[in-house]
Amino acid sequence: MAKTINDLELKEACVQAAREVIAEQGVEGLSMRDVARRLDISHQAPYRHFPSRDHLLAEIMRRCFEDFANFLDMSAKNHSEDALRGMGDAYMGYAAQKPLEYRLMFGTPWPEPAAHPELVKHAVHAFDVLRQNLLKKHGHQKNAKKQAELEAMFIWSALHGLATIEQSNVMQHLVLSKGVQAHSKDFMMCMIQSALASGKSEEFMNHVV
Amino acid sequence: MAKTINDLELKEACVQAAREVIAEQGVEGLSMRDVARRLDISHQAPYRHFPSRDHLLAEIMRRCFEDFANFLDMSAKNHSEDALRGMGDAYMGYAAQKPLEYRLMFGTPWPEPAAHPELVKHAVHAFDVLRQNLLKKHGHQKNAKKQAELEAMFIWSALHGLATIEQSNVMQHLVLSKGVQAHSKDFMMCMIQSALASGKSEEFMNHVV
Repeated sequence: MAKTINDLELKEACVQAAREVIAEQGVEGLSMRDVARRLDISHQAPYRHFPSRDHLLAEIMRRCFEDFANFLDMSAKNHSEDALRGMGDAYMGYAAQKPLEYRLMFGTPWPEPAAHPELVKHAVHAFDVLRQNLLKKHGHQKNAKKQAELEAMFIWSALHGLATIEQSNVMQHLVLSKGVQAHSKDFMMCMIQSALASGKSEEFMNHVV
Repeated sequence: MAKTINDLELKEACVQAAREVIAEQGVEGLSMRDVARRLDISHQAPYRHFPSRDHLLAEIMRRCFEDFANFLDMSAKNHSEDALRGMGDAYMGYAAQKPLEYRLMFGTPWPEPAAHPELVKHAVHAFDVLRQNLLKKHGHQKNAKKQAELEAMFIWSALHGLATIEQSNVMQHLVLSKGVQAHSKDFMMCMIQSALASGKSEEFMNHVV
Protein backbone atom coordinates (compact mmCIF):
# COMPACT_ATOMS: atom_id res chain seq x y z
CA MET A 1 0.00 0.00 0.00
CA ALA A 2 1.72 3.20 -1.18
CA LYS A 3 1.70 6.11 1.26
CA THR A 4 0.52 9.56 0.26
CA ILE A 5 3.58 11.73 0.03
CA ASN A 6 4.28 14.92 -1.91
CA ASP A 7 7.25 15.47 -4.19
CA LEU A 8 9.54 17.39 -1.86
CA GLU A 9 8.79 15.01 0.96
CA LEU A 10 9.53 12.12 -1.34
CA LYS A 11 12.94 13.46 -2.22
CA GLU A 12 13.84 14.00 1.45
CA ALA A 13 12.39 10.64 2.41
CA CYS A 14 14.56 8.92 -0.20
CA VAL A 15 17.68 10.63 1.15
CA GLN A 16 16.77 9.66 4.70
CA ALA A 17 15.96 6.06 3.78
CA ALA A 18 19.21 5.76 1.81
CA ARG A 19 21.18 6.97 4.82
CA GLU A 20 19.53 4.30 6.91
CA VAL A 21 20.39 1.61 4.37
CA ILE A 22 24.02 2.78 4.34
CA ALA A 23 24.15 2.84 8.15
CA GLU A 24 22.89 -0.73 8.33
CA GLN A 25 24.51 -2.39 5.34
CA GLY A 26 27.34 -0.15 4.23
CA VAL A 27 27.42 1.85 1.03
CA GLU A 28 27.73 -1.31 -1.09
CA GLY A 29 24.27 -2.35 0.12
CA LEU A 30 22.54 0.77 -1.22
CA SER A 31 20.03 0.16 -4.02
CA MET A 32 17.03 2.09 -5.31
CA ARG A 33 14.91 -1.00 -4.69
CA ASP A 34 15.84 -1.06 -0.99
CA VAL A 35 15.02 2.61 -0.65
CA ALA A 36 11.60 2.12 -2.23
CA ARG A 37 10.89 -0.93 -0.07
CA ARG A 38 11.83 0.92 3.10
CA LEU A 39 9.43 3.77 2.22
CA ASP A 40 6.71 1.41 1.09
CA ILE A 41 6.46 3.17 -2.28
CA SER A 42 6.62 1.83 -5.83
CA HIS A 43 10.03 0.79 -7.17
CA GLN A 44 9.81 3.53 -9.77
CA ALA A 45 9.02 6.39 -7.38
CA PRO A 46 12.62 7.24 -6.27
CA TYR A 47 13.57 7.68 -9.94
CA ARG A 48 11.34 10.76 -10.09
CA HIS A 49 14.09 12.57 -8.16
CA PHE A 50 17.24 10.58 -8.77
CA PRO A 51 18.10 9.17 -12.22
CA SER A 52 20.17 6.43 -10.60
CA ARG A 53 21.46 4.99 -7.36
CA ASP A 54 24.73 6.89 -7.90
CA HIS A 55 22.84 10.19 -8.16
CA LEU A 56 21.17 9.49 -4.84
CA LEU A 57 24.51 8.58 -3.26
CA ALA A 58 26.16 11.69 -4.74
CA GLU A 59 23.40 13.87 -3.23
CA ILE A 60 23.97 12.35 0.22
CA MET A 61 27.72 12.84 -0.04
CA ARG A 62 27.30 16.39 -1.32
CA ARG A 63 25.24 17.23 1.75
CA CYS A 64 27.86 15.66 4.02
CA PHE A 65 30.65 17.75 2.50
CA GLU A 66 28.55 20.92 2.60
CA ASP A 67 27.70 20.36 6.24
CA PHE A 68 31.33 19.49 7.08
CA ALA A 69 32.80 22.50 5.23
CA ASN A 70 30.39 24.91 6.94
CA PHE A 71 31.15 23.38 10.31
CA LEU A 72 34.93 23.77 9.80
CA ASP A 73 34.48 27.32 8.53
CA MET A 74 32.38 28.32 11.52
CA SER A 75 34.85 26.73 13.95
CA ALA A 76 37.75 28.62 12.38
CA LYS A 77 35.81 31.91 12.68
CA ASN A 78 34.78 31.24 16.27
CA HIS A 79 38.44 30.75 17.20
CA SER A 80 39.88 33.68 15.28
CA GLU A 81 42.81 33.98 17.73
CA ASP A 82 43.75 30.40 16.87
CA ALA A 83 41.80 29.34 13.79
CA LEU A 84 43.95 26.27 13.20
CA ARG A 85 43.29 24.92 16.65
CA GLY A 86 39.57 25.59 16.25
CA MET A 87 39.50 23.75 12.94
CA GLY A 88 41.55 20.84 14.27
CA ASP A 89 39.24 20.31 17.22
CA ALA A 90 36.18 20.66 14.99
CA TYR A 91 37.59 18.16 12.50
CA MET A 92 38.30 15.52 15.12
CA GLY A 93 34.96 16.13 16.84
CA TYR A 94 33.06 15.68 13.59
CA ALA A 95 34.85 12.42 12.77
CA ALA A 96 34.15 11.03 16.24
CA GLN A 97 30.51 12.10 16.40
CA LYS A 98 29.53 11.36 12.81
CA PRO A 99 31.52 8.25 11.86
CA LEU A 100 29.01 7.26 9.17
CA GLU A 101 29.23 10.64 7.42
CA TYR A 102 33.01 10.74 7.83
CA ARG A 103 33.44 7.29 6.31
CA LEU A 104 31.11 8.21 3.43
CA MET A 105 33.18 11.28 2.56
CA PHE A 106 36.66 9.86 3.02
CA GLY A 107 36.49 6.09 3.25
CA THR A 108 34.34 4.91 0.35
CA PRO A 109 34.65 5.17 -3.44
CA TRP A 110 32.79 8.09 -4.96
CA PRO A 111 30.19 7.83 -7.68
CA GLU A 112 31.75 9.00 -11.00
CA PRO A 113 32.85 12.56 -10.08
CA ALA A 114 32.50 14.03 -13.58
CA ALA A 115 28.77 13.39 -13.40
CA HIS A 116 28.41 15.10 -10.01
CA PRO A 117 30.07 18.52 -10.09
CA GLU A 118 28.18 19.70 -6.98
CA LEU A 119 29.73 16.89 -4.96
CA VAL A 120 33.20 17.87 -6.14
CA LYS A 121 32.53 21.56 -5.43
CA HIS A 122 31.59 20.98 -1.80
CA ALA A 123 34.43 18.51 -1.22
CA VAL A 124 36.94 21.07 -2.50
CA HIS A 125 35.28 23.72 -0.34
CA ALA A 126 36.05 21.67 2.79
CA PHE A 127 39.74 21.57 1.84
CA ASP A 128 39.65 25.27 0.96
CA VAL A 129 38.65 26.27 4.48
CA LEU A 130 42.04 24.96 5.58
CA ARG A 131 43.95 26.15 2.50
CA GLN A 132 42.57 29.70 2.73
CA ASN A 133 43.30 30.00 6.44
CA LEU A 134 46.91 29.04 5.87
CA LEU A 135 47.18 31.30 2.85
CA LYS A 136 46.20 34.30 5.00
CA LYS A 137 49.27 33.64 7.13
CA HIS A 138 51.67 33.64 4.19
CA GLY A 139 50.11 36.59 2.42
CA HIS A 140 51.71 37.58 -0.83
CA GLN A 141 55.19 36.18 -0.34
CA LYS A 142 56.74 34.15 -3.14
CA ASN A 143 55.37 30.63 -3.34
CA ALA A 144 52.75 31.49 -0.68
CA LYS A 145 50.08 29.32 -2.30
CA LYS A 146 52.39 26.35 -2.65
CA GLN A 147 53.51 26.62 0.95
CA ALA A 148 49.92 26.91 2.22
CA GLU A 149 49.00 23.80 0.23
CA LEU A 150 51.92 21.75 1.53
CA GLU A 151 51.01 22.78 5.07
CA ALA A 152 47.34 22.00 4.44
CA MET A 153 48.24 18.52 3.17
CA PHE A 154 50.38 17.90 6.26
CA ILE A 155 47.71 19.07 8.70
CA TRP A 156 44.90 17.26 6.93
CA SER A 157 46.94 14.05 6.77
CA ALA A 158 47.61 14.09 10.50
CA LEU A 159 43.96 14.81 11.39
CA HIS A 160 42.56 12.28 8.95
CA GLY A 161 45.10 9.69 10.01
CA LEU A 162 44.33 10.00 13.72
CA ALA A 163 40.57 10.07 13.09
CA THR A 164 40.67 6.81 11.15
CA ILE A 165 43.24 5.09 13.40
CA GLU A 166 41.10 5.81 16.45
CA GLN A 167 38.24 3.94 14.80
CA SER A 168 40.42 1.07 13.58
CA ASN A 169 40.55 -2.49 14.86
CA VAL A 170 44.22 -2.40 15.74
CA MET A 171 43.90 0.48 18.23
CA GLN A 172 42.53 -1.53 21.16
CA HIS A 173 45.31 -4.11 20.85
CA LEU A 174 48.28 -1.76 21.09
CA VAL A 175 48.11 -1.71 24.90
CA LEU A 176 49.02 1.96 25.08
CA SER A 177 50.00 3.51 28.40
CA LYS A 178 47.31 5.18 30.45
CA GLY A 179 46.40 8.61 29.08
CA VAL A 180 48.01 8.19 25.67
CA GLN A 181 44.81 7.72 23.72
CA ALA A 182 43.06 10.54 25.59
CA HIS A 183 45.95 12.96 24.91
CA SER A 184 46.71 11.94 21.31
CA LYS A 185 44.73 14.74 19.71
CA ASP A 186 46.14 17.52 21.91
CA PHE A 187 49.67 16.20 21.51
CA MET A 188 49.24 16.11 17.73
CA MET A 189 47.92 19.69 17.58
CA CYS A 190 50.91 20.74 19.71
CA MET A 191 53.30 18.97 17.31
CA ILE A 192 51.64 20.52 14.25
CA GLN A 193 51.81 24.01 15.69
CA SER A 194 55.44 23.70 16.74
CA ALA A 195 56.36 22.35 13.28
CA LEU A 196 54.65 25.28 11.55
CA ALA A 197 56.32 27.77 13.90
CA SER A 198 59.80 26.26 13.52
CA GLY A 199 60.79 28.08 10.34
CA LYS A 200 61.43 24.73 8.67
CA SER A 201 58.47 25.23 6.36
CA GLU A 202 60.07 28.40 4.91
CA GLU A 203 63.43 26.64 4.73
CA PHE A 204 61.87 23.77 2.80
CA MET A 205 60.30 26.22 0.34
CA ASN A 206 63.63 27.95 -0.25
CA HIS A 207 65.74 24.85 -0.69
CA VAL A 208 63.53 22.13 -2.08
CA VAL A 209 60.49 23.37 -3.96
CA MET B 1 37.06 -32.02 -12.59
CA ALA B 2 39.15 -31.62 -9.44
CA LYS B 3 42.86 -30.97 -9.93
CA THR B 4 45.49 -33.12 -8.22
CA ILE B 5 47.03 -30.96 -5.52
CA ASN B 6 48.79 -31.84 -2.27
CA ASP B 7 47.89 -30.45 1.12
CA LEU B 8 50.50 -27.72 1.45
CA GLU B 9 49.92 -26.62 -2.11
CA LEU B 10 46.20 -26.53 -1.41
CA LYS B 11 46.64 -24.20 1.55
CA GLU B 12 48.84 -21.81 -0.44
CA ALA B 13 46.53 -22.03 -3.44
CA CYS B 14 43.56 -21.05 -1.25
CA VAL B 15 45.44 -18.03 0.09
CA GLN B 16 46.43 -16.97 -3.41
CA ALA B 17 42.92 -17.46 -4.81
CA ALA B 18 41.42 -15.51 -1.90
CA ARG B 19 43.79 -12.62 -2.58
CA GLU B 20 42.63 -12.59 -6.19
CA VAL B 21 38.97 -12.55 -5.14
CA ILE B 22 39.66 -9.65 -2.78
CA ALA B 23 41.58 -7.77 -5.49
CA GLU B 24 38.69 -8.12 -7.91
CA GLN B 25 35.63 -7.83 -5.68
CA GLY B 26 36.80 -6.30 -2.43
CA VAL B 27 36.94 -8.07 0.90
CA GLU B 28 33.13 -8.23 1.12
CA GLY B 29 33.14 -10.48 -1.95
CA LEU B 30 35.32 -13.16 -0.37
CA SER B 31 33.63 -16.53 0.17
CA MET B 32 34.93 -20.10 0.53
CA ARG B 33 32.73 -21.08 -2.39
CA ASP B 34 34.41 -18.52 -4.68
CA VAL B 35 37.84 -19.73 -3.63
CA ALA B 36 36.93 -23.35 -4.39
CA ARG B 37 35.40 -22.41 -7.74
CA ARG B 38 38.48 -20.44 -8.74
CA LEU B 39 40.73 -23.44 -7.97
CA ASP B 40 38.36 -25.91 -9.57
CA ILE B 41 38.25 -28.01 -6.39
CA SER B 42 35.34 -29.31 -4.33
CA HIS B 43 33.49 -26.78 -2.15
CA GLN B 44 34.59 -28.68 0.94
CA ALA B 45 38.32 -28.77 0.13
CA PRO B 46 39.28 -25.28 1.47
CA TYR B 47 37.77 -26.25 4.84
CA ARG B 48 40.56 -28.80 5.29
CA HIS B 49 42.86 -25.85 6.08
CA PHE B 50 40.56 -23.04 7.15
CA PRO B 51 37.56 -23.67 9.43
CA SER B 52 35.81 -20.61 8.00
CA ARG B 53 36.05 -17.72 5.58
CA ASP B 54 37.16 -15.50 8.48
CA HIS B 55 40.05 -17.84 9.29
CA LEU B 56 41.22 -17.61 5.69
CA LEU B 57 40.93 -13.82 5.76
CA ALA B 58 42.76 -13.64 9.10
CA GLU B 59 45.61 -15.71 7.65
CA ILE B 60 45.95 -13.34 4.69
CA MET B 61 45.93 -10.30 6.96
CA ARG B 62 48.42 -11.90 9.36
CA ARG B 63 50.83 -12.40 6.45
CA CYS B 64 50.37 -8.79 5.35
CA PHE B 65 51.18 -7.46 8.82
CA GLU B 66 54.16 -9.82 9.20
CA ASP B 67 55.54 -8.73 5.84
CA PHE B 68 54.88 -5.06 6.59
CA ALA B 69 56.46 -5.17 10.09
CA ASN B 70 59.60 -6.89 8.77
CA PHE B 71 59.86 -4.38 5.95
CA LEU B 72 59.63 -1.41 8.36
CA ASP B 73 62.11 -3.03 10.74
CA MET B 74 64.64 -3.64 7.98
CA SER B 75 64.23 -0.09 6.66
CA ALA B 76 64.84 1.37 10.13
CA LYS B 77 68.00 -0.76 10.50
CA ASN B 78 69.28 0.14 7.04
CA HIS B 79 69.00 3.83 7.94
CA SER B 80 70.45 3.67 11.43
CA GLU B 81 71.68 7.28 11.22
CA ASP B 82 68.07 8.35 10.62
CA ALA B 83 65.80 5.41 11.42
CA LEU B 84 62.66 7.55 11.48
CA ARG B 85 63.25 8.82 7.97
CA GLY B 86 63.97 5.28 6.77
CA MET B 87 60.75 4.02 8.28
CA GLY B 88 58.71 6.93 6.96
CA ASP B 89 59.91 6.39 3.41
CA ALA B 90 59.37 2.65 3.72
CA TYR B 91 55.86 3.15 5.07
CA MET B 92 54.81 5.46 2.25
CA GLY B 93 56.46 3.25 -0.37
CA TYR B 94 54.64 0.17 0.87
CA ALA B 95 51.26 1.91 0.84
CA ALA B 96 51.82 3.18 -2.71
CA GLN B 97 53.14 -0.09 -4.11
CA LYS B 98 50.80 -2.48 -2.30
CA PRO B 99 47.49 -0.64 -2.07
CA LEU B 100 45.52 -3.89 -1.79
CA GLU B 101 47.56 -5.13 1.19
CA TYR B 102 47.53 -1.68 2.78
CA ARG B 103 43.76 -1.40 2.52
CA LEU B 104 43.31 -4.91 3.91
CA MET B 105 45.37 -4.07 7.01
CA PHE B 106 44.07 -0.60 7.72
CA GLY B 107 40.95 0.03 5.69
CA THR B 108 38.67 -2.97 6.23
CA PRO B 109 37.01 -4.50 9.28
CA TRP B 110 38.97 -7.36 10.86
CA PRO B 111 37.61 -10.83 11.47
CA GLU B 112 36.86 -11.24 15.20
CA PRO B 113 40.32 -10.50 16.71
CA ALA B 114 39.88 -12.69 19.81
CA ALA B 115 39.74 -15.73 17.53
CA HIS B 116 42.92 -14.77 15.67
CA PRO B 117 45.71 -13.98 18.15
CA GLU B 118 48.41 -14.38 15.50
CA LEU B 119 46.85 -11.59 13.44
CA VAL B 120 46.82 -9.32 16.48
CA LYS B 121 50.42 -10.22 17.35
CA HIS B 122 51.79 -9.24 13.96
CA ALA B 123 49.69 -6.06 13.76
CA VAL B 124 51.04 -4.94 17.13
CA HIS B 125 54.55 -5.84 15.97
CA ALA B 126 54.24 -3.35 13.09
CA PHE B 127 53.37 -0.57 15.55
CA ASP B 128 56.16 -1.73 17.89
CA VAL B 129 58.84 -1.13 15.28
CA LEU B 130 57.96 2.55 15.52
CA ARG B 131 57.29 2.55 19.28
CA GLN B 132 60.62 0.84 20.10
CA ASN B 133 62.64 3.14 17.86
CA LEU B 134 61.20 6.19 19.62
CA LEU B 135 61.65 4.61 23.02
CA LYS B 136 65.40 4.23 22.37
CA LYS B 137 65.60 8.01 22.01
CA HIS B 138 63.94 8.70 25.35
CA GLY B 139 65.76 5.99 27.25
CA HIS B 140 64.91 5.72 30.90
CA GLN B 141 63.64 9.20 31.61
CA LYS B 142 60.36 9.60 33.46
CA ASN B 143 57.32 8.93 31.29
CA ALA B 144 59.58 7.76 28.44
CA LYS B 145 57.16 5.07 27.29
CA LYS B 146 54.21 7.44 27.31
CA GLN B 147 56.13 10.05 25.33
CA ALA B 148 57.30 7.47 22.78
CA GLU B 149 53.72 6.30 22.32
CA LEU B 150 52.33 9.81 21.86
CA GLU B 151 55.03 10.49 19.28
CA ALA B 152 54.36 7.16 17.58
CA MET B 153 50.65 7.96 17.32
CA PHE B 154 51.45 11.38 15.82
CA ILE B 155 53.89 9.98 13.26
CA TRP B 156 51.70 7.04 12.33
CA SER B 157 48.65 9.31 11.95
CA ALA B 158 50.47 11.63 9.56
CA LEU B 159 51.85 8.74 7.46
CA HIS B 160 48.57 6.85 7.38
CA GLY B 161 46.63 10.00 6.62
CA LEU B 162 48.78 11.01 3.67
CA ALA B 163 48.88 7.44 2.32
CA THR B 164 45.08 7.20 2.27
CA ILE B 165 44.47 10.77 1.08
CA GLU B 166 46.78 10.22 -1.88
CA GLN B 167 44.59 7.31 -2.95
CA SER B 168 41.31 9.13 -2.32
CA ASN B 169 38.84 10.46 -4.85
CA VAL B 170 39.02 14.03 -3.67
CA MET B 171 42.77 14.39 -4.30
CA GLN B 172 42.61 14.94 -8.06
CA HIS B 173 39.98 17.68 -7.68
CA LEU B 174 41.87 19.95 -5.30
CA VAL B 175 43.81 21.58 -8.16
CA LEU B 176 46.99 21.79 -6.13
CA SER B 177 49.89 23.92 -7.37
CA LYS B 178 52.57 22.23 -9.41
CA GLY B 179 54.95 20.19 -7.28
CA VAL B 180 52.77 20.09 -4.17
CA GLN B 181 51.69 16.48 -4.51
CA ALA B 182 55.21 15.34 -5.43
CA HIS B 183 56.70 17.10 -2.38
CA SER B 184 53.99 16.26 0.15
CA LYS B 185 55.81 13.30 1.67
CA ASP B 186 59.17 15.06 2.04
CA PHE B 187 57.52 18.15 3.45
CA MET B 188 55.63 16.04 5.97
CA MET B 189 58.77 14.20 7.10
CA CYS B 190 60.48 17.58 7.50
CA MET B 191 57.55 18.85 9.63
CA ILE B 192 57.53 15.71 11.78
CA GLN B 193 61.25 15.91 12.44
CA SER B 194 61.19 19.60 13.30
CA ALA B 195 58.24 19.02 15.66
CA LEU B 196 60.07 16.22 17.48
CA ALA B 197 63.23 18.32 17.73
CA SER B 198 61.44 21.43 18.99
CA GLY B 199 61.37 20.48 22.67
CA LYS B 200 57.58 20.85 22.67
CA SER B 201 57.14 17.12 23.14
CA GLU B 202 59.03 17.25 26.47
CA GLU B 203 57.14 20.40 27.43
CA PHE B 204 53.84 18.65 26.76
CA MET B 205 54.89 15.72 28.93
CA ASN B 206 55.82 18.02 31.81
CA HIS B 207 52.75 20.19 31.72
CA VAL B 208 49.91 18.12 30.39
CA VAL B 209 50.30 14.39 30.89
